[in-house]
Amino acid sequence: MYVIKVGGRDGNDFANVAEGLREVRPSVVVHGGSTAVDALATALGHPPRFLTSPSGYVSRYTDAAAIDIVSMAMAGRENVALVAALQANDVPAVGLSGVDGRLVVGRRKTAIRSVEGDKVKVIHDDRSGTIESVNVGLLHGLLASGYIPVVSPPILDAQDHLPLNVDADRLAAHIASSLSAKALVLLTNVPGVCLDASDPSTVVLSIPRADLTAHLERVQGGMRKKLLAASEALAGGVPRVVIGDSRRPDPVRAALRGEGTVIA
Amino acid sequence: MYVIKVGGRDGNDFANVAEGLREVRPSVVVHGGSTAVDALATALGHPPRFLTSPSGYVSRYTDAAAIDIVSMAMAGRENVALVAALQANDVPAVGLSGVDGRLVVGRRKTAIRSVEGDKVKVIHDDRSGTIESVNVGLLHGLLASGYIPVVSPPILDAQDHLPLNVDADRLAAHIASSLSAKALVLLTNVPGVCLDASDPSTVVLSIPRADLTAHLERVQGGMRKKLLAASEALAGGVPRVVIGDSRRPDPVRAALRGEGTVIA
Repeated sequence: MYVIKVGGRDGNDFANVAEGLREVRPSVVVHGGSTAVDALATALGHPPRFLTSPSGYVSRYTDAAAIDIVSMAMAGRENVALVAALQANDVPAVGLSGVDGRLVVGRRKTAIRSVEGDKVKVIHDDRSGTIESVNVGLLHGLLASGYIPVVSPPILDAQDHLPLNVDADRLAAHIASSLSAKALVLLTNVPGVCLDASDPSTVVLSIPRADLTAHLERVQGGMRKKLLAASEALAGGVPRVVIGDSRRPDPVRAALRGEGTVIA
Repeated sequence: MYVIKVGGRDGNDFANVAEGLREVRPSVVVHGGSTAVDALATALGHPPRFLTSPSGYVSRYTDAAAIDIVSMAMAGRENVALVAALQANDVPAVGLSGVDGRLVVGRRKTAIRSVEGDKVKVIHDDRSGTIESVNVGLLHGLLASGYIPVVSPPILDAQDHLPLNVDADRLAAHIASSLSAKALVLLTNVPGVCLDASDPSTVVLSIPRADLTAHLERVQGGMRKKLLAASEALAGGVPRVVIGDSRRPDPVRAALRGEGTVIA
């Protein structure tokens, strides 16, 4: 079992991703779509806002209007577009959000500390959550019938049964752990973890598990979330995480061959 | 097997619908969401436009921008909201669009005649389609695992594998026919087919199959599409279609008891 997280952004990559997916079975695909969420939010006059935790993680500030936008852009636009593109490449994809069949259930973060200038504010109306459970039965049923599940945020709030936002890399990590996946592949638009983010030749070929915390301190932005997701997947029993380049041909099998940053 | 088409508009109805759904099994839910599509289209500066066929049917003019809006509002917002609301009422719902697992595949209408004033124009860039096939295996698999599929537009274009819009009542009729459903229930915000649309007391209790064409000539707007869907379901072997009131308590079982307009 493999879990492949793809960026849902660049339509040109879907055919590449599809090629590998047809051969790498069984697999579950996870995607985000922050570019689409940002674009829709801006077009609707509700520009994206972000929170920065005291430990330096950046996350979307998802108020009541923003969670609707997340649902529309991710479960509506990106998931439908990705599933259609996979069908066009003979991958029998079925799109799901975490809400479907209680696939991913979590708990809302009711108090989030956010650094603003030299102050720390506490945010109470954010509709993002911490994952508590994954309904692997729904995934196994679809896989047994030959389908490839394609999963996106939102997830379901265990308490009020409303949608919650969640980081897609960490969603992929939880799904990989729950499925006892052999590997988690996080495809992105750089060759892997780079010592200098502006220089692809500084890609780190391998990060031993023991060094992950040190790397976490060093990197910023989206890559920091990917390393956090990688650490969660390893802690959840996934033996190997590969951060690979979605732009090269056949990116899934390249990553599984170890091209990119291998974390184990 | 029952197919229940609900209006995805008024959240207050979901709990009512859920009550009946828990008891009426197996069943498949279908929904539209034209109010949500119109609202999103307007908010995005792309106001809804409609086409009127020479025979008097009104349909959404779905150009390239509009099909994205349909996906976001229906598969994103309405489907996620309905599935979450059903979960809150102990209905194990799984949302799907026609794109998922090639659930509903169709053919794009490449030339649509539209009446504009005293002229008939031919529209070539509309991304709406005619349904050609339903993948009942995907529905049966989910039903066998105890889930209730909740299906919305868009569907998948058989030729270019892009999303297509389709009328939700007619989508429900095709799914009911494909599943050899015992009944198709079309829930709406009026008590049934009314001789005078402004007077609920003029509801028609029963329409024999032979009289359906005569009724089709008489009614306008959304109800005309429902009668067309009813005629397609009957032609597809569904023995009974009930157009019932979604606003009353336990609307699914009320409709199945014959409350509303029974077409058989």
